[in-house]
Amino acid sequence: MPLTLPTGQKIVVATHNPGKARELAAILENRFELVTAGELGLPEPDETETTFVGNALIKARAAADASGLVALADDSGLSVTALGGAPGVHSARWAGPTKDFALAMRKVEERLEATEGEDLSAWFTCALAVAWPQGPAVVVEGRLDGTLVFPARGTRGFGYDPIFLPQGRRETFGEMDPAEKDAMSHRALAFEKLKAALL
Amino acid sequence: MPLTLPTGQKIVVATHNPGKARELAAILENRFELVTAGELGLPEPDETETTFVGNALIKARAAADASGLVALADDSGLSVTALGGAPGVHSARWAGPTKDFALAMRKVEERLEATEGEDLSAWFTCALAVAWPQGPAVVVEGRLDGTLVFPARGTRGFGYDPIFLPQGRRETFGEMDPAEKDAMSHRALAFEKLKAALL
Repeated sequence: MPLTLPTGQKIVVATHNPGKARELAAILENRFELVTAGELGLPEPDETETTFVGNALIKARAAADASGLVALADDSGLSVTALGGAPGVHSARWAGPTKDFALAMRKVEERLEATEGEDLSAWFTCALAVAWPQGPAVVVEGRLDGTLVFPARGTRGFGYDPIFLPQGRRETFGEMDPAEKDAMSHRALAFEKLKAALL
Repeated sequence: MPLTLPTGQKIVVATHNPGKARELAAILENRFELVTAGELGLPEPDETETTFVGNALIKARAAADASGLVALADDSGLSVTALGGAPGVHSARWAGPTKDFALAMRKVEERLEATEGEDLSAWFTCALAVAWPQGPAVVVEGRLDGTLVFPARGTRGFGYDPIFLPQGRRETFGEMDPAEKDAMSHRALAFEKLKAALL
């Protein structure tokens, strides 16, 4: 079994979020036939690992083995240097059950103030995993460094985007044109690596 | 970067155990130029994940990024159905700092007795990860089902081998000829998958 993804390959995207599936479809240039884990009624596995690639792998593995299809999963988040990498794999959890990222961003600001340090550096990570049913899996990771800004700026993007200023840029991800963000983001970097490896 | 391992490729084996490196060299048919993480003085990362592939990935990733070489790591263990998969990724830990597997096997027996159940089924898992420096990684997993036997039988092999009777066999891994074990083991199954994926 060669580790490649031929054009037209049917792929299950291990997300129950239709928006994320659409975003992935756009990035994959409509090269594949995509179906989501939600559409197939697959269960959502627990994300028990301490790393982004570990959790992406759990999701891709579960979807591939349950569906018999090649599966793609992502896991991403914000890591803050002065917080020892937090929120990291708990980035979504910090927003609580209502996915309140205004709350999550305040939490980051408060914890940073508690450190009384000067280091505002942070990075976004996106891990991608592709798993073959009962077979191997390939994982890649994209990382984008930046600086946190308070107060938050901009209403575009999602998650922690309004407090993240990518290195060398004037606009936060919350202010930036979506196409510009999509071209430089941690997700784009991860997909570049995945394409180089598998396409 | 194609996901293949050309003959003669220099590979760092992410183990500080010379015996394990020799075992891996034999399995890899001396096809590659192997060096160990111990020989290179690389630090041993914490194995923080809940899955075998997750921990293999942590070890391979750390060795690849620290050395600039392609890295191979394994993680393996025994899972007991009636114990909910324990000891699992904690298989080595159950043997304590002195690596006392007689102790670990007694612990399995005691916990099984406490369940008062009839289910003696168990399986060995071997996960392998190959990571490219700052690049992708490939993971595979081999699984071998069997039955636990008490008291332990045989003095060959290592770890939990003397209490593990592979499905359809008369001898435990502790009694079996090493070459016979090596041909059918969870490690062999994982390497078959890895070869199919990368060679």
